[in-house]
Amino acid sequence: MTQAEKAERFRRLHEGPEILVLPNAWDVATARIVELAGYSAVATTSAGIAASLGYPDGECISRDEMLSVVARIVRAVSIPVTADVESGYGDPLETARAVAATGAIGINLEDVTAERGDTLADLDRQTALIHEMQALGLPLVINARTDIFLGEIGETATRVARTIQRLNAYRDAGADCLFAPGVRDLDTITTLAQEIGGPLNILAVAGSPAVPELHQAGVKRVSIGSGGSRAALGLFRRIAMELKEQGTYTAMLDGQIPFAEVNRMLAGANRKH
Amino acid sequence: MTQAEKAERFRRLHEGPEILVLPNAWDVATARIVELAGYSAVATTSAGIAASLGYPDGECISRDEMLSVVARIVRAVSIPVTADVESGYGDPLETARAVAATGAIGINLEDVTAERGDTLADLDRQTALIHEMQALGLPLVINARTDIFLGEIGETATRVARTIQRLNAYRDAGADCLFAPGVRDLDTITTLAQEIGGPLNILAVAGSPAVPELHQAGVKRVSIGSGGSRAALGLFRRIAMELKEQGTYTAMLDGQIPFAEVNRMLAGANRKH
Repeated sequence: MTQAEKAERFRRLHEGPEILVLPNAWDVATARIVELAGYSAVATTSAGIAASLGYPDGECISRDEMLSVVARIVRAVSIPVTADVESGYGDPLETARAVAATGAIGINLEDVTAERGDTLADLDRQTALIHEMQALGLPLVINARTDIFLGEIGETATRVARTIQRLNAYRDAGADCLFAPGVRDLDTITTLAQEIGGPLNILAVAGSPAVPELHQAGVKRVSIGSGGSRAALGLFRRIAMELKEQGTYTAMLDGQIPFAEVNRMLAGANRKH
Repeated sequence: MTQAEKAERFRRLHEGPEILVLPNAWDVATARIVELAGYSAVATTSAGIAASLGYPDGECISRDEMLSVVARIVRAVSIPVTADVESGYGDPLETARAVAATGAIGINLEDVTAERGDTLADLDRQTALIHEMQALGLPLVINARTDIFLGEIGETATRVARTIQRLNAYRDAGADCLFAPGVRDLDTITTLAQEIGGPLNILAVAGSPAVPELHQAGVKRVSIGSGGSRAALGLFRRIAMELKEQGTYTAMLDGQIPFAEVNRMLAGANRKH
């Protein structure tokens, strides 16, 4: 399958009757787990990759470091890979070209940046940017995100209306999918799904409706962001604390993947392409 | 503290009344968890790092890729870091120099290689190698490992005697610590601790005695190898399967480290040195 065909296949996964579910990976081993679990695509978590390489979230990591992990994952799996690249590392169009060069077929783009902090990108500028990115003709499914809910930006009373306005503007500019992380209330999610003229992506966090409810509400894509990475780090911390305080291995041994199985999961992963 | 002082401090941790416990890390986030949990040193797991980068265990990864992760961990933590480098990637002396160049202060060296499979290195050659490595004068605590038990190499009846012979030869050649992974029986561990003329390192796996029992038996160092990594991967697989089959988030949310806390853990981690 060519990269363009992979991108097209991934785009169509947003348009069918099924809901697209993406348990975000942060390294090759976790990406292979997603593939072997039977998922149709792998999404990366920028916060998870950054943590693994030693950076807090928020574009502290360089584009090259982030994409080196994305490229490793692309080489290791056969299913489509979509890359979370925060706000595009200062030059979103160049970042989109670099994402496509890894072989990934999707990109997440935020409308806040670390420098701007809680301030949203100017709407006209962000829509122009998405339009330019789409016009590059790269084999990328563009997932345009607004941080209004996640960053609790602006007046509470207008968040729904502003989210609808932004996501529809991003859709009109050429975004394939629209991402509203931070929305957990099912009624609000239902409203967004109805009012937005394209596939809606919801982030699953504590308090989120389960996937079947999201599906029912019209959501087309569900992802977990850094949730899996932070769960794994939580388990490792419990392992370390139990080892220190009790000197026992219960947390480590409960549900551990056997050594030989991890090796089988990764056999040939770096030679696939 | 200079690198030599760090190495000396780490060496002394094998000689005190306390047992040295090392929950092996495989990336910067897990290394920071070890540091923040109050451990006195970080050991890496070569199998865990290899899996994260997409390789099975057994020197499929290149030395440079392995050490790039070690170097990241060294930059991110203040406590001593000791590196698992399998059998030395074809040139153990050059690998030792490269490990020291990362700022790490310890090295694990196996006496089997992927090419040799189940065959142990010639004893004279391995002791000569350890002697040469020690004679380089690098600020490295050398942890010499024999794979007799882990690889189930040679006749069962002679494994204890051969392990004692090898580890004492490695000690005489200049190794600071002696590693016998694969030994789980407490009586055997006690015998090894008594008969080996240097600090004994035991790998904690399913069926291993708890740390206090190992301490009592005379063990000086306990590590978990890839156990933490494989536990984390097991949890991520449960998260992915639950998400796929039930569409719920129980495994992901149970004990997850909050987003802001992960960011705090990593704040400044790449600027420390």
